[in-house]
Amino acid sequence: MQVTLSQISLLLCLLSCASSVGARYTPDWASLDSRPLPEWYDEVKFGIFVHWGVFSVPAFGSEWFWWYWKGAHSIKYILFMIKNYPPGFSYTDFAPDFHAQFFDPDEWADIFEASGAKYVVLTSKHHEGFTNWGSPNSWNWNSVDNGPHRDLVGDLGKAIRKRSLHYGLYNSLYEWFNPIYLSDKHAGFKTQDYVAKKVLPELTNLVNRYKPDLIWSDGDWEAPDTYWNSTEFLAWLYNDSPVKDVVVTNDRWGAGCYCKHGGYYNCADKFTPGQLPNHKWEKCQSVDTLSWGYRRNMKLSELMDLPRIIKDLVYTVALGGNYLLNVGPTADGVIVPVFEERLRGIGAWLKINGEAIYATKPWRVQSENATSLVWYTSKNTSTVYAIITANPMQNFFKLAMPKTSNSTVVTLLGNPEPLKWIPLQSTGLAVQLPELPFTPAQAWTLKLDGVA
Amino acid sequence: MQVTLSQISLLLCLLSCASSVGARYTPDWASLDSRPLPEWYDEVKFGIFVHWGVFSVPAFGSEWFWWYWKGAHSIKYILFMIKNYPPGFSYTDFAPDFHAQFFDPDEWADIFEASGAKYVVLTSKHHEGFTNWGSPNSWNWNSVDNGPHRDLVGDLGKAIRKRSLHYGLYNSLYEWFNPIYLSDKHAGFKTQDYVAKKVLPELTNLVNRYKPDLIWSDGDWEAPDTYWNSTEFLAWLYNDSPVKDVVVTNDRWGAGCYCKHGGYYNCADKFTPGQLPNHKWEKCQSVDTLSWGYRRNMKLSELMDLPRIIKDLVYTVALGGNYLLNVGPTADGVIVPVFEERLRGIGAWLKINGEAIYATKPWRVQSENATSLVWYTSKNTSTVYAIITANPMQNFFKLAMPKTSNSTVVTLLGNPEPLKWIPLQSTGLAVQLPELPFTPAQAWTLKLDGVA
Amino acid sequence: MQVTLSQISLLLCLLSCASSVGARYTPDWASLDSRPLPEWYDEVKFGIFVHWGVFSVPAFGSEWFWWYWKGAHSIKYILFMIKNYPPGFSYTDFAPDFHAQFFDPDEWADIFEASGAKYVVLTSKHHEGFTNWGSPNSWNWNSVDNGPHRDLVGDLGKAIRKRSLHYGLYNSLYEWFNPIYLSDKHAGFKTQDYVAKKVLPELTNLVNRYKPDLIWSDGDWEAPDTYWNSTEFLAWLYNDSPVKDVVVTNDRWGAGCYCKHGGYYNCADKFTPGQLPNHKWEKCQSVDTLSWGYRRNMKLSELMDLPRIIKDLVYTVALGGNYLLNVGPTADGVIVPVFEERLRGIGAWLKINGEAIYATKPWRVQSENATSLVWYTSKNTSTVYAIITANPMQNFFKLAMPKTSNSTVVTLLGNPEPLKWIPLQSTGLAVQLPELPFTPAQAWTLKLDGVA
Amino acid sequence: MQVTLSQISLLLCLLSCASSVGARYTPDWASLDSRPLPEWYDEVKFGIFVHWGVFSVPAFGSEWFWWYWKGAHSIKYILFMIKNYPPGFSYTDFAPDFHAQFFDPDEWADIFEASGAKYVVLTSKHHEGFTNWGSPNSWNWNSVDNGPHRDLVGDLGKAIRKRSLHYGLYNSLYEWFNPIYLSDKHAGFKTQDYVAKKVLPELTNLVNRYKPDLIWSDGDWEAPDTYWNSTEFLAWLYNDSPVKDVVVTNDRWGAGCYCKHGGYYNCADKFTPGQLPNHKWEKCQSVDTLSWGYRRNMKLSELMDLPRIIKDLVYTVALGGNYLLNVGPTADGVIVPVFEERLRGIGAWLKINGEAIYATKPWRVQSENATSLVWYTSKNTSTVYAIITANPMQNFFKLAMPKTSNSTVVTLLGNPEPLKWIPLQSTGLAVQLPELPFTPAQAWTLKLDGVA
Repeated sequence: MQVTLSQISLLLCLLSCASSVGARYTPDWASLDSRPLPEWYDEVKFGIFVHWGVFSVPAFGSEWFWWYWKGAHSIKYILFMIKNYPPGFSYTDFAPDFHAQFFDPDEWADIFEASGAKYVVLTSKHHEGFTNWGSPNSWNWNSVDNGPHRDLVGDLGKAIRKRSLHYGLYNSLYEWFNPIYLSDKHAGFKTQDYVAKKVLPELTNLVNRYKPDLIWSDGDWEAPDTYWNSTEFLAWLYNDSPVKDVVVTNDRWGAGCYCKHGGYYNCADKFTPGQLPNHKWEKCQSVDTLSWGYRRNMKLSELMDLPRIIKDLVYTVALGGNYLLNVGPTADGVIVPVFEERLRGIGAWLKINGEAIYATKPWRVQSENATSLVWYTSKNTSTVYAIITANPMQNFFKLAMPKTSNSTVVTLLGNPEPLKWIPLQSTGLAVQLPELPFTPAQAWTLKLDGVA
Repeated sequence: MQVTLSQISLLLCLLSCASSVGARYTPDWASLDSRPLPEWYDEVKFGIFVHWGVFSVPAFGSEWFWWYWKGAHSIKYILFMIKNYPPGFSYTDFAPDFHAQFFDPDEWADIFEASGAKYVVLTSKHHEGFTNWGSPNSWNWNSVDNGPHRDLVGDLGKAIRKRSLHYGLYNSLYEWFNPIYLSDKHAGFKTQDYVAKKVLPELTNLVNRYKPDLIWSDGDWEAPDTYWNSTEFLAWLYNDSPVKDVVVTNDRWGAGCYCKHGGYYNCADKFTPGQLPNHKWEKCQSVDTLSWGYRRNMKLSELMDLPRIIKDLVYTVALGGNYLLNVGPTADGVIVPVFEERLRGIGAWLKINGEAIYATKPWRVQSENATSLVWYTSKNTSTVYAIITANPMQNFFKLAMPKTSNSTVVTLLGNPEPLKWIPLQSTGLAVQLPELPFTPAQAWTLKLDGVA
Repeated sequence: MQVTLSQISLLLCLLSCASSVGARYTPDWASLDSRPLPEWYDEVKFGIFVHWGVFSVPAFGSEWFWWYWKGAHSIKYILFMIKNYPPGFSYTDFAPDFHAQFFDPDEWADIFEASGAKYVVLTSKHHEGFTNWGSPNSWNWNSVDNGPHRDLVGDLGKAIRKRSLHYGLYNSLYEWFNPIYLSDKHAGFKTQDYVAKKVLPELTNLVNRYKPDLIWSDGDWEAPDTYWNSTEFLAWLYNDSPVKDVVVTNDRWGAGCYCKHGGYYNCADKFTPGQLPNHKWEKCQSVDTLSWGYRRNMKLSELMDLPRIIKDLVYTVALGGNYLLNVGPTADGVIVPVFEERLRGIGAWLKINGEAIYATKPWRVQSENATSLVWYTSKNTSTVYAIITANPMQNFFKLAMPKTSNSTVVTLLGNPEPLKWIPLQSTGLAVQLPELPFTPAQAWTLKLDGVA
Repeated sequence: MQVTLSQISLLLCLLSCASSVGARYTPDWASLDSRPLPEWYDEVKFGIFVHWGVFSVPAFGSEWFWWYWKGAHSIKYILFMIKNYPPGFSYTDFAPDFHAQFFDPDEWADIFEASGAKYVVLTSKHHEGFTNWGSPNSWNWNSVDNGPHRDLVGDLGKAIRKRSLHYGLYNSLYEWFNPIYLSDKHAGFKTQDYVAKKVLPELTNLVNRYKPDLIWSDGDWEAPDTYWNSTEFLAWLYNDSPVKDVVVTNDRWGAGCYCKHGGYYNCADKFTPGQLPNHKWEKCQSVDTLSWGYRRNMKLSELMDLPRIIKDLVYTVALGGNYLLNVGPTADGVIVPVFEERLRGIGAWLKINGEAIYATKPWRVQSENATSLVWYTSKNTSTVYAIITANPMQNFFKLAMPKTSNSTVVTLLGNPEPLKWIPLQSTGLAVQLPELPFTPAQAWTLKLDGVA
């Protein structure tokens, strides 16, 4: 009996291909980076980021409170403590006041859904090491043993999924002050005690328990991915974990990885590329421009207003990114009204203009400086959306980039009637705008069908 | 004709008794009610009300927290306490957490000034009896001995006056659980221990120390003014106090007094008359429709948005009232961003439209149902302001009430150019509106000069 | 001679109307000082003093904590606060931690009864002004509104009386930081606001409510009795109060009064006269020699041990005084074991030797330096008690002072058999002592019947 | 070159013999049990046990508070929490109140030294898992990160050693609620995650850091020593640790080990053998008979008094044991006076009677029921101590067991003069006792030289 080459291939695959056909990833970047991003992620475009933890108790300065205080010895934080707390008060002493007594996951999920977001990413553990779930590897430093005495990760997850939103979990690899981590660090990361005892057991436990659709990795930068055993973890995640088919992850898996390896790219926080990147990316941005965690004394001028958020979202989507907008709940478990207002404002705008955002693709041109700045997205072959981010206060609004045809139809989203338009001399068109309807978002979409 | 001695007396009084020389008020309503309201009050139109106290610590339900819990035995409040506090926790136990650590009176005053308000009224003492100043008659139950350890009334006052705003003080006559008050009450208000030992010494002390431009009296309703010795107090206030010439007060000086005696009338909370009252009045209203004090878990839907506030302000001024809009700061001493946003929004609107509000008088007609509801105010003899509280989305906007003349000029406030208009058949005019400029307040003012 | 009915009445009254009908005291010292001390007081000899209040919460330094900290600005107290509490922490902030959660009045009363004490004096209000009962004149600064949320004065009283002990109440006239008091003081005590509004209503209320057998007045020294209206109060107390027949009081009723006016004399704290005073007196003494209130960090060497206490008690009784021994309970409501041990130790000693203490009178000689120091008390005409306060370690123990007769009988209390003795040459006797039984108190009593 | 056998031995030894000649222990009980107990331990006889931890904060019921509350669901503990704490209050919430603000290690060490104890054993970690030192394996659940913010183990150790006392550390192997432990337990102890990640790294770290003279192991009973890897740890401890030559340990190294394997035997808590054990043992006993940790509401009747303690000590030493007496300091860091009194009382007694305790050996007879119960100890060949634990109140005191000789000399410790004695008929002697000097301990020692 003869055996052909393909028969040998099949045989090898039968031996090694776990569940899908042939596609087991090996723990190296070449293999892991070759994995296609699950489709849902590019379609959803807009998500909510939630930073919640013990830092929400002092709620002062930033979610990096502990670090600024005890790591960087920032005078601002030291004075805050001296003025308001007794000597010897430690960061752990904040935990009992993380009460979360008003936390109603369904209320949160209602607000998130109303915002038009399609995924929600919660900090399951920030750099402080406090887990928002009962991690056995974080005994007495988690939300079940301490403060809220509640499985925050699980409870929010249920509410999020009831509304068919995707649920992602942020996880910090490093923990600023974990002595086991510090000992590895002191050893130049030649030892991996912290990874073996803490990171990997906890992370796999997290995935197995909560089956997140997305893992937002962070806190990787002080050590190479070889220290973190990132490729081994990802190989397991992609091959054998309960979320292997749907899970999306980002690019923070070790020093030098970001913008280079992993799933989609976050690159730096608030990454703002100047032109269309060639890899799926995500911009994360906080409504409070000074902090991701709640600040009790934030001022209006430090917050993004709705028009600015909409502009940012539109820009990001036009450049092929996803937009992950952050709000920091209070230690009481409340998303304060000023954040709720922003989120509902986005949702109101997306109700009319969402067609130009969800499941779109970048167009051949990303933007145009018309009377007002215009961003483009597209769908199918011939539908283009031109999103106007300031009222041009004009009757005739000119767009230079779209190439019109006889079948070109222009509408203002939210308006039933097609608009009158005329082609411009060389290329482009002038659209006769109606009085633009009032919207606090201050952005409107022209839908151009039959253009190229 | 003979002139009797008493006729001479009367004559002399008519000549001199206005406010100056001989004009001493006697402690009876006839005399006190005859006092003209100091002019500044009617001119300013818009003030800010600030409810701050120990109730800002639980910050739950309402500033009537204590009463609902221990007086009315409301199940909602009882459960809140059972779920979140140890047995035996009492209302006084909240006081140590009234930290006010972020309280910066200048920041508050900046926001109030930016709102366009011309007076600010702070609760110097609410029904809980806790004084926001070091009242000697409220030892160990005031903001200097307890919680903030600070003279809140004094500190805010300085910042307010630096900005030339008027400073008023709210004062509750009764104290729900003051045992001396309860003892008087038990005696059918035949005894006046509480008034002698607490109310009058404290109130005169308050006036002498802080020289308020306005006393916003409250908590009077369970006893007649004769119990409170209100007329005696007011006679002193009008005759001999350091603020006798400028002070304004309201009408809550005893059961049956409201809407009848005192200075301007508040009548009931959130009083909303259907037609022009014949006495100066004030509408007080809270941004948080459910509470005057801060609530940690307030939701966006429970708050007034900017257009609703502007409508309310405009309505009140058109009917001759002042508008006193309330915000409740946090126990930390912060005016949260959602309130700041409302206040700055009003200020932005008043910057353009304030001419139609400040120092105006009600017009002969208060409102008109044009395409949109229109409210009128006036200044001098021939200037009328028509405030449009919804975008009519029309080119020609008709007003039926104003009688035009040849010299009639119509302008849109904020717009330099006069608008075209044509007289209507019988009376009124049709104004050619430009595209109304974007304002989150959703209200615009037409100024009509030379109309009747 | 005829005797009318009314004459008989009068006669009966002269015989029996000690304090009733005719015998009304006038509000002056001459009259008040003439009142005979109710008999029970001289008979009981031994009482327990209990200092309990907000000072029991810091439980540091002394029950004068507040004064040393904020009045005297003692560096020791300032540092204690700086090291252990946040800035701005005030004395009132201690009150919520006055929990008294383990307070069981019956347990206390059992210990007091077991100590052999016949009266108990509790601080109803110390100089801090905090009342251990719901005084209407001390709203929100009392044990019912704050901390324990319990009527401590009432609850202890019930348990004390169930055991037929007398119940006394300590009351401080002045309150260090009461602003009304300070205002009177500032006015050189020409005004009496504080007395009218606070002291007198509160004190009469206290008497009417709890009917104390003893009022232990204190805090009088900064002002004369005319400021305090002390004679008026005492006249009421002796003439019309519900305790007029039984109440005993001390001598702290105004500057200059002590050791001179009032009921029995306390003179200074821990008053230790060198010879027999000619007026009934009381020595108050604290087991903790450094404080009357509980101190969390007291050391054994700072406490009186049992022999020292017994010596002090014996000395006091021999000199005609009563002995009021103080213990300071914890803020939790516990009389700690080291105090319990002292009290039960006294009781064990009194069980055998009480005959030489209760209801005795000073003898013609108070003490004698025999081999050991000996104190004398007496009963009836011919019974003398010689209390030996150190084991003489001798077979024959000589006493020089008693004059023996043929009928003289000597016994050792606790020993059934009479002891052998021989008269000494001039006067006195030598007693043949048995081996003295073990007692931690290290004191024994020889009872001498039939001596002079 | 020739190599002799002995040269090879030497070479092998150089390779393997740690410090002594050839004596490396292998990780099995046969080898480990063969190790001679370092001599100091049997000589010192008396030590102090100190239970201190987070349990000292509730200080209620027992140091097993957490277990009774959350493990056994004891109604007493549940009610205590319900009555005194808010819902959701967890055991970890007690940690911030473990202030230790009065903790002065030198004061403690002074008291311990004054007690006559020669070693002190502190709980470095009790079953709650909270380490009283900054264990890197117990991040955020230790006395440096939490509560005291201080290295309690290190600080006390320095003070103890300054006084030349031996320093021992108690260590609980299991931790009631450690999820890693519970997971191993759930797996029937087939997994050893907890041992590998927590127990062994922490324990070796503890030994290396603090070089304890004694390890008091506990909490072993739920799993066999093979789970704990006890023999491996002990082999390291005896062969290679920095304390290999001096360290003493007990017998709690796994289910079934106690009274059988390890160093000296503790057997059960408060082990009280009826006759002379054939292995060195230790009786641990707490002054508070109901708890090892501090209890805020302990009563005198629940405490051992001095005579009872002395009897217990004497009994233990007579039977060849060491006596480890426990006191529980407060969360404030204080050894309360009642405990101090006991300890100083023992010291006072040992100052006179210590000769009969320290460095003695059991005699051929352990006790005798003379008029009072008598316990025997011995030194050298012919010195015997007869400790009388109650005053026989006799002139002639008979002892039946000692065999006298012509050279027999009897003295009362503390008394310079030899006592008269006469031999009894068969065996034994009658000693003529002086009046026994007062001692609160109620025990005296007869020293018999030249007896058999």
